[in-house]
Amino acid sequence: MKLGDLIKNPKGFKVTGIYRVSRFEVKTAKNGKAYGDCLISDQSFDVPAKYWDIPGDMVGLFQNNGLLRIEATLDYFKESPQLTIDGVKIPLQQDIDESLQSLGLMATHSLESMYTRLRTIIAGVEQPMLKQLLMHIFVENKTFAAKFVRHPGAVKNHHAYIGGLLQHTLEVAENALAYCGHNARINKDLLVSAALIHDIGKVREIDIDALGLPVGFTKEGKLLRHISLGMEQIEAACREIGVNEEINVILKHCILSHHGMPEWGSPVEPMVMEAEILHYLDNLSAKAEQFAREEDKVEPGEFSKSYLLRRDVYRAIY
Amino acid sequence: MKLGDLIKNPKGFKVTGIYRVSRFEVKTAKNGKAYGDCLISDQSFDVPAKYWDIPGDMVGLFQNNGLLRIEATLDYFKESPQLTIDGVKIPLQQDIDESLQSLGLMATHSLESMYTRLRTIIAGVEQPMLKQLLMHIFVENKTFAAKFVRHPGAVKNHHAYIGGLLQHTLEVAENALAYCGHNARINKDLLVSAALIHDIGKVREIDIDALGLPVGFTKEGKLLRHISLGMEQIEAACREIGVNEEINVILKHCILSHHGMPEWGSPVEPMVMEAEILHYLDNLSAKAEQFAREEDKVEPGEFSKSYLLRRDVYRAIY
Amino acid sequence: MKLGDLIKNPKGFKVTGIYRVSRFEVKTAKNGKAYGDCLISDQSFDVPAKYWDIPGDMVGLFQNNGLLRIEATLDYFKESPQLTIDGVKIPLQQDIDESLQSLGLMATHSLESMYTRLRTIIAGVEQPMLKQLLMHIFVENKTFAAKFVRHPGAVKNHHAYIGGLLQHTLEVAENALAYCGHNARINKDLLVSAALIHDIGKVREIDIDALGLPVGFTKEGKLLRHISLGMEQIEAACREIGVNEEINVILKHCILSHHGMPEWGSPVEPMVMEAEILHYLDNLSAKAEQFAREEDKVEPGEFSKSYLLRRDVYRAIY
Amino acid sequence: MKLGDLIKNPKGFKVTGIYRVSRFEVKTAKNGKAYGDCLISDQSFDVPAKYWDIPGDMVGLFQNNGLLRIEATLDYFKESPQLTIDGVKIPLQQDIDESLQSLGLMATHSLESMYTRLRTIIAGVEQPMLKQLLMHIFVENKTFAAKFVRHPGAVKNHHAYIGGLLQHTLEVAENALAYCGHNARINKDLLVSAALIHDIGKVREIDIDALGLPVGFTKEGKLLRHISLGMEQIEAACREIGVNEEINVILKHCILSHHGMPEWGSPVEPMVMEAEILHYLDNLSAKAEQFAREEDKVEPGEFSKSYLLRRDVYRAIY
Amino acid sequence: MKLGDLIKNPKGFKVTGIYRVSRFEVKTAKNGKAYGDCLISDQSFDVPAKYWDIPGDMVGLFQNNGLLRIEATLDYFKESPQLTIDGVKIPLQQDIDESLQSLGLMATHSLESMYTRLRTIIAGVEQPMLKQLLMHIFVENKTFAAKFVRHPGAVKNHHAYIGGLLQHTLEVAENALAYCGHNARINKDLLVSAALIHDIGKVREIDIDALGLPVGFTKEGKLLRHISLGMEQIEAACREIGVNEEINVILKHCILSHHGMPEWGSPVEPMVMEAEILHYLDNLSAKAEQFAREEDKVEPGEFSKSYLLRRDVYRAIY
Amino acid sequence: MKLGDLIKNPKGFKVTGIYRVSRFEVKTAKNGKAYGDCLISDQSFDVPAKYWDIPGDMVGLFQNNGLLRIEATLDYFKESPQLTIDGVKIPLQQDIDESLQSLGLMATHSLESMYTRLRTIIAGVEQPMLKQLLMHIFVENKTFAAKFVRHPGAVKNHHAYIGGLLQHTLEVAENALAYCGHNARINKDLLVSAALIHDIGKVREIDIDALGLPVGFTKEGKLLRHISLGMEQIEAACREIGVNEEINVILKHCILSHHGMPEWGSPVEPMVMEAEILHYLDNLSAKAEQFAREEDKVEPGEFSKSYLLRRDVYRAIY
Repeated sequence: MKLGDLIKNPKGFKVTGIYRVSRFEVKTAKNGKAYGDCLISDQSFDVPAKYWDIPGDMVGLFQNNGLLRIEATLDYFKESPQLTIDGVKIPLQQDIDESLQSLGLMATHSLESMYTRLRTIIAGVEQPMLKQLLMHIFVENKTFAAKFVRHPGAVKNHHAYIGGLLQHTLEVAENALAYCGHNARINKDLLVSAALIHDIGKVREIDIDALGLPVGFTKEGKLLRHISLGMEQIEAACREIGVNEEINVILKHCILSHHGMPEWGSPVEPMVMEAEILHYLDNLSAKAEQFAREEDKVEPGEFSKSYLLRRDVYRAIY
Repeated sequence: MKLGDLIKNPKGFKVTGIYRVSRFEVKTAKNGKAYGDCLISDQSFDVPAKYWDIPGDMVGLFQNNGLLRIEATLDYFKESPQLTIDGVKIPLQQDIDESLQSLGLMATHSLESMYTRLRTIIAGVEQPMLKQLLMHIFVENKTFAAKFVRHPGAVKNHHAYIGGLLQHTLEVAENALAYCGHNARINKDLLVSAALIHDIGKVREIDIDALGLPVGFTKEGKLLRHISLGMEQIEAACREIGVNEEINVILKHCILSHHGMPEWGSPVEPMVMEAEILHYLDNLSAKAEQFAREEDKVEPGEFSKSYLLRRDVYRAIY
Repeated sequence: MKLGDLIKNPKGFKVTGIYRVSRFEVKTAKNGKAYGDCLISDQSFDVPAKYWDIPGDMVGLFQNNGLLRIEATLDYFKESPQLTIDGVKIPLQQDIDESLQSLGLMATHSLESMYTRLRTIIAGVEQPMLKQLLMHIFVENKTFAAKFVRHPGAVKNHHAYIGGLLQHTLEVAENALAYCGHNARINKDLLVSAALIHDIGKVREIDIDALGLPVGFTKEGKLLRHISLGMEQIEAACREIGVNEEINVILKHCILSHHGMPEWGSPVEPMVMEAEILHYLDNLSAKAEQFAREEDKVEPGEFSKSYLLRRDVYRAIY
Repeated sequence: MKLGDLIKNPKGFKVTGIYRVSRFEVKTAKNGKAYGDCLISDQSFDVPAKYWDIPGDMVGLFQNNGLLRIEATLDYFKESPQLTIDGVKIPLQQDIDESLQSLGLMATHSLESMYTRLRTIIAGVEQPMLKQLLMHIFVENKTFAAKFVRHPGAVKNHHAYIGGLLQHTLEVAENALAYCGHNARINKDLLVSAALIHDIGKVREIDIDALGLPVGFTKEGKLLRHISLGMEQIEAACREIGVNEEINVILKHCILSHHGMPEWGSPVEPMVMEAEILHYLDNLSAKAEQFAREEDKVEPGEFSKSYLLRRDVYRAIY
Repeated sequence: MKLGDLIKNPKGFKVTGIYRVSRFEVKTAKNGKAYGDCLISDQSFDVPAKYWDIPGDMVGLFQNNGLLRIEATLDYFKESPQLTIDGVKIPLQQDIDESLQSLGLMATHSLESMYTRLRTIIAGVEQPMLKQLLMHIFVENKTFAAKFVRHPGAVKNHHAYIGGLLQHTLEVAENALAYCGHNARINKDLLVSAALIHDIGKVREIDIDALGLPVGFTKEGKLLRHISLGMEQIEAACREIGVNEEINVILKHCILSHHGMPEWGSPVEPMVMEAEILHYLDNLSAKAEQFAREEDKVEPGEFSKSYLLRRDVYRAIY
Repeated sequence: MKLGDLIKNPKGFKVTGIYRVSRFEVKTAKNGKAYGDCLISDQSFDVPAKYWDIPGDMVGLFQNNGLLRIEATLDYFKESPQLTIDGVKIPLQQDIDESLQSLGLMATHSLESMYTRLRTIIAGVEQPMLKQLLMHIFVENKTFAAKFVRHPGAVKNHHAYIGGLLQHTLEVAENALAYCGHNARINKDLLVSAALIHDIGKVREIDIDALGLPVGFTKEGKLLRHISLGMEQIEAACREIGVNEEINVILKHCILSHHGMPEWGSPVEPMVMEAEILHYLDNLSAKAEQFAREEDKVEPGEFSKSYLLRRDVYRAIY
């Protein structure tokens, strides 16, 4: 059940389900015995829980697993719900992925299907060197590919879930393809390649937990940010397969300038047409998802106060 | 011939063609006779010209016609070319349109074909009230439609030619349709409607000459700008056919917010998802054309210094 | 008595007076019975109150009436005062207005006297079309006039009380008249007219409760703001009585530009002398009231930390 | 005659009048003789002039006198008018003042009448210490008073003429008095005193020539600006007559903050109500004069492009 | 002992030491007797304390002395430590200074040794008038010198402790000397003099308590800030000993411009080379101390979130 | 002779010396023969020159050599000096360096002595890995070292001459060492290393001519800027000699952040103490040289209008 529905039930109600352990600490009760003090969460709610007389082997289980199958009893403290944990189990791997999705912690499309779409886009690139470079990065380097497919696209906010980076990348690349259908001036292969690599630095910038969920920034992520890291990755990949200077420089420029202006993180503004288009398509993907999230919080005809967008969002009736 | 090719010819060379009279003044020569002092222009060059002993009836012809069929003789003054006009004629209407296009003063697509695309887009709108509103504005109001089809999209810079407003409007609307193909959350009818009307205030904002070319801003254009004027036009159209309050307010909001932020002319930021998308698609169309113009000025591998974009533009080799 | 004086009294003290119910909710007590949980407020203090075993008909009374005559008994919880409500009555209409004023929720000058001043200013306008327009808006349209006279001038901060919009409008218009006494260049009729209409959009922008007190922004207020709404109202009024184009455009420009610059909400800066003067007089009225409010919070020689003005305000001794 | 009317006359026309010598240099002609090469100006026009075979004693006259009675003959060089000087005289003192006024280089009101208005305002101040301070600065210190009365209010732009500082000061102070008539909260004596002294630092900031016209900034004017200089002058005056600390600090704060915010030159924003009001009244005076100057350049219904205001100014027909 | 170590001890533990009384109030207990309710602080921790049945003479002691030798017993309330005061004594003067230092409330170098360094720097100035001026301010004016030596350099953040102003001043002046060793263009005497006086206005801007610790800003500090106050002090000192105009103006310019730009509090940017250098050296001293404080909060390899610097600070391992 | 002194000489005067050919074009004279049209420059002046009947082999000489020994005859055209070239020679290498220096186109210190100072600084680094890295970059990589030693530090403005990059680098590094003498908290080796490498990207960013003088930006310089290029160079060097991750990341962070904030070109602000110090020392070096250049243009007591610094610079008398 959704934790947000807990308060519809009376004290003593029995809860079972796979939830996230978003905080966990071992404390000592007044009787001198150890107990687990934690926060159990899903997309809808966070509820404090106590695991009295926690067995020693359970401690590690709580510490190392973001997601657990929990059985608990509902109680109330000053009108707020809290849980007493009766038992815990490690969920099956297949249940975990389902749970992550139902908890809103994984992309709505399957990772496999998204990766297929990625390879289809690469297959459509005609310029041989660009195609070779994309194959090298996203297909042949299997370690990186596996990481890229699961990585979140952000620490918070839009695309901050497993597979979020891939989903955002696909949105930008597919919109790029659609856009090229209406503008013959664009170098399609260049724009699509830039779209696919523009955020690869996030794989090194965003730190993840055992589940693959974002927990903050890495050291190099904080000190160098994903734009510099992505340029470094492209430089290395170009060197490895001998990409020519022109492509090398332009792709790095596309990464460097894709935030559009210095105040937004790009020290140079886009100076190549495809870099400029990429900047807008990147923004389109990010903003569309942010608006969708705000709309989900309210009914048609209502406003949602968006902290992230720094404005109210109105969900239109029509 | 292109005026830019004049300098390849010797003194005494005879020139004939339809050109623009971009400046004209009647002056008195040392012999006491009136002569016409003017600037003859095409896309490639501006060349000063003198019409000695100009006949009285020719003066009006120069003053009232932006485009004339000119016969002239080439001369040089301090190594710069100048023309002595031998004769002038009013060009045939069909020649005028051809000339405008070859001078880069008219949209590259025919106005008829673009207007057909506009009606096709309107025909695809399903929400009945939005469709009725668009029909009312762009089809039934024949005076407005005729104006809209020929109006320039700007005074200078991108889309500043006959049919430029329609061309820009179509770019935004067709990209909107393409974008909706990849984002099921968007209300397609709303986005397309907003795209079609977002710049209609420009019909009142931009002042045109007899040829239909932009010559500056109208009084209300300067004092109120196209955003306020467009909102007023939509308010009037909604009133005329009884559009409901929700659509009325949202469409006006889309116009009001489409420049994205106060510094760029929109006192409110987009608060409706379709308004946000519109803002980016509008920018995409404007910037893509600006980059294309800069690219046209240089060879692949070179930079063009763009005054308008306030940066250098690089024309990629790949 | 002022609620701020409650804490000077012991537990069991009896309180009677007309106060505002600023929050109200029906809850269920431990004994299973319904009780009213509310916040009773005046200008000086907010005190929580409980109405045990609240009778059913009293619930509606609390929900629909912002102002009630309350009898209650004082108690203390952790040294903070709270009230137990013993009885409630709907106050007489004449008492309500008095109470609103004493609670600082209504303009200090009577609404009638302010409306008389408004009509006197209109009577002094000499240009016939401007006078006719002002009569049409503020006198002949009785529904609008009644609304305008009582409307608050803001949701929070300066002029956020009943009659606040009229009071602010009069301040600006009367200062405009005084200013014209020292500057013969100004078109007095134009400046005064612009002063009277500059904020009329607030009637549609600010949402009010049954008492007429501001509770937030309306939907169109949020999406379009009072500047756009006011321009629409002037456009409609001008159309209704056939005001000429020059006056129509200038008045709309005065509204559009009166916030002075894009960052402050005006997409165009004032381009007409009277619009520029209006901008400063509008600011003068707003800032003078904000400073007065801050001064009221402290003694001479002290500083008040103003959240709204983002600075400290010093109340001078001299 | 106005120099702007010169071009209506034929070559050989004789010109006589008092004009400004805005540039002067002694050069050597091809015949080896010295001649004076200068620019003769009035409000309407600048015309180059040559004084062939200039007598030695005339050189000093040209160098030391901004204003001369000139007799000259009109000539044309490439259709532009130029003058050959036939004779020069030092104008009578009384003619100089008249000429300055007709040249737009002196305030339109007489300096005496403006000084009388200044003393009248001071006479109306009731708080004894403020009155004593103002008397000390503007009346008893005769050297300073004489300087203040004639000083320009700016190097360029608004109030940049003899008596401009006094005229601007009076505008601010008289508007302050008018404003106090509608706002009983204001400390009238404090506001008026602050208005009278707010720009006194300009006497030290702006450098003047022999005629009293602004020629640039002084060294301390550039390095310290009039706000710091004015504070120093008030500090000295307060010390000299023993003004108490409260008045001393507040008056200096009014000077320090009267530009309103750091970007406009005031490191602190106004924190005292009268300082805030002063800021707006100061702006009102400056902007009203700037708009008036722009309006003077065009006919009703036209726009003037204002470099100073960074926008177009529209001169309304109504 | 450090208060931060209290929690390592059990209830009933006896504490003795010199601590700061950072808040104190006399309240009435349930038994009707007066007790002292206070907050006892050192650099590491703030702990609430109660002094039951406080003797009347002890009240004044608590009110007038920031630092007291306290004997108390440890207790716990909801797992948080609190103290019951058993006895209090005024510490010896020599103990006070030691305690201040160990509490981080006084400069780490002795005030005497720092004052000696200050005089050594002055002794090294060769230009006689600058040397005389510095001697006048920092040595001969003994009252000012004594104040300057102990004054804090800020209300919060960097250098906000006794002797902080002197320590910051020395850092800037000594770095200035070091810098001159590598740049022969600099006027060493001028730069060093400007360094020594740049912040003297802080003596009047920052308000201190009996101990000499910063408690906020003075009235003139808030209304005029230390830059204006410092200029006034230099103007007075220059007048007193007859310093020439050039030095007077330049030194005041150095003070006025040392924050570098309007947004940072300097209405003029540095226009003299030494003023520019001073601006950077001042920043270097401030920022270096802020970084040091952030580094102190974490271990090598960790980030500290700096509210003051508005960024994370990383403490490098190397 | 200095070209600036040409005008002191009469027509026909013979000039000999080594000058820069700053513009050169072959044109056809009226007699049909080829002539060289060029601009001859030194630090003091640019003078147009004509080389009539230029021999074919001389054309290449003019095109390929920035610096030539020129013999010419002085003439005047409309009072402006111009030269007729009588003969040209390629100067000896040793003369070229002398000339560059006297023309202000080469660092004032010898390149050898500066390179010695660089190696001395490296020799003083104690941390072995940092020392090894610096040796690898600046000593062992002889091609790079040779380039670095001669490279200009900018295209225009400060340090825009041969050896300018090395001179600026030394200024920053030596000031860093001096600074560490007064601040024990700084990691000297880290700060000095960061100082030495902070601008190495300029070797790839700035394009030079045959003489080694800056002529603009390279393609990668425009598209990626020296910060990104420098990071790439450090990444490569670290990889080559196996520098550990911590040093690698911090050095790249120092480069990335050394412009201090996004608006100035650094997408991240300094987050490591040494990076922050570097930012200020870099600015100090740049600004000190800019001020020195402005001071050189005027006499003590005068102001120089600095286009680059966007303010006037005052050269103090003391």
